[in-house]
Amino acid sequence: MSCLFCRIIRGEVPCYKVFENEHALAFLDVGPLSVGHTLVIPKSHAATMDEVPDECLADMMVAIKKVAKAIRAEFGEGMNYNVLQNNGRMAHQFVPHVHYHVIPKPNAEQGLGVHWPIRETPKPAALTTLAASLASHCQ
Amino acid sequence: MSCLFCRIIRGEVPCYKVFENEHALAFLDVGPLSVGHTLVIPKSHAATMDEVPDECLADMMVAIKKVAKAIRAEFGEGMNYNVLQNNGRMAHQFVPHVHYHVIPKPNAEQGLGVHWPIRETPKPAALTTLAASLASHCQ
Repeated sequence: MSCLFCRIIRGEVPCYKVFENEHALAFLDVGPLSVGHTLVIPKSHAATMDEVPDECLADMMVAIKKVAKAIRAEFGEGMNYNVLQNNGRMAHQFVPHVHYHVIPKPNAEQGLGVHWPIRETPKPAALTTLAASLASHCQ
Repeated sequence: MSCLFCRIIRGEVPCYKVFENEHALAFLDVGPLSVGHTLVIPKSHAATMDEVPDECLADMMVAIKKVAKAIRAEFGEGMNYNVLQNNGRMAHQFVPHVHYHVIPKPNAEQGLGVHWPIRETPKPAALTTLAASLASHCQ
């Protein structure tokens, strides 16, 4: 296994640990977008979020919330922050082991830059059809 | 209560529902960044993620995963996607009720645009100190 994050979990590569529980590990990103930028990963390998078992996702959520509260305790209760999780290279994922970024957003220049291209509002009939189709896949 | 998402939860404002469970509701974003852009919200009001109870976060994660799998079933198993949750106006949050975006990323033009400003790599001593401080807040 040459997965970098699996090696961190096994202790073969050091990390700046912030928190861990049964299924999740949180540590500082060494290439941060802002001071306090933290990663939360599942301890068992999965490439994308949809492959992670539910009980592991629950532990990850607890860890993400712990980190967010810690960031607010450290930098101020009003600190803004983004939670981002990318799936696939096109979606800006560069390590193929699921990771949630928790990124403080202290000002316009530091932290995550979000580009929100406005698109044409879809027709109601198209949204109705799409929602029904996605809902059927959720059964 | 004039919160738009609380009104959707109460059925006072319609939505294009994709999935729901005890604590979470998923529905199409009517101003999508790409076809299939879906929001997952907690059924109880909270402005930011760190205020959401753990059991509710667990249900939200289950809903996010359901939506991600549905997107892959609908658009292809290799579909890339981003999961994004913003906390605070500076961090691009415009409705002050927690919402996770699940956004298909079919190509470079459509979906979420991520701007990743490269910063100087922090010194190891600074990272060690910061990790210890954040870890103390997680206790």
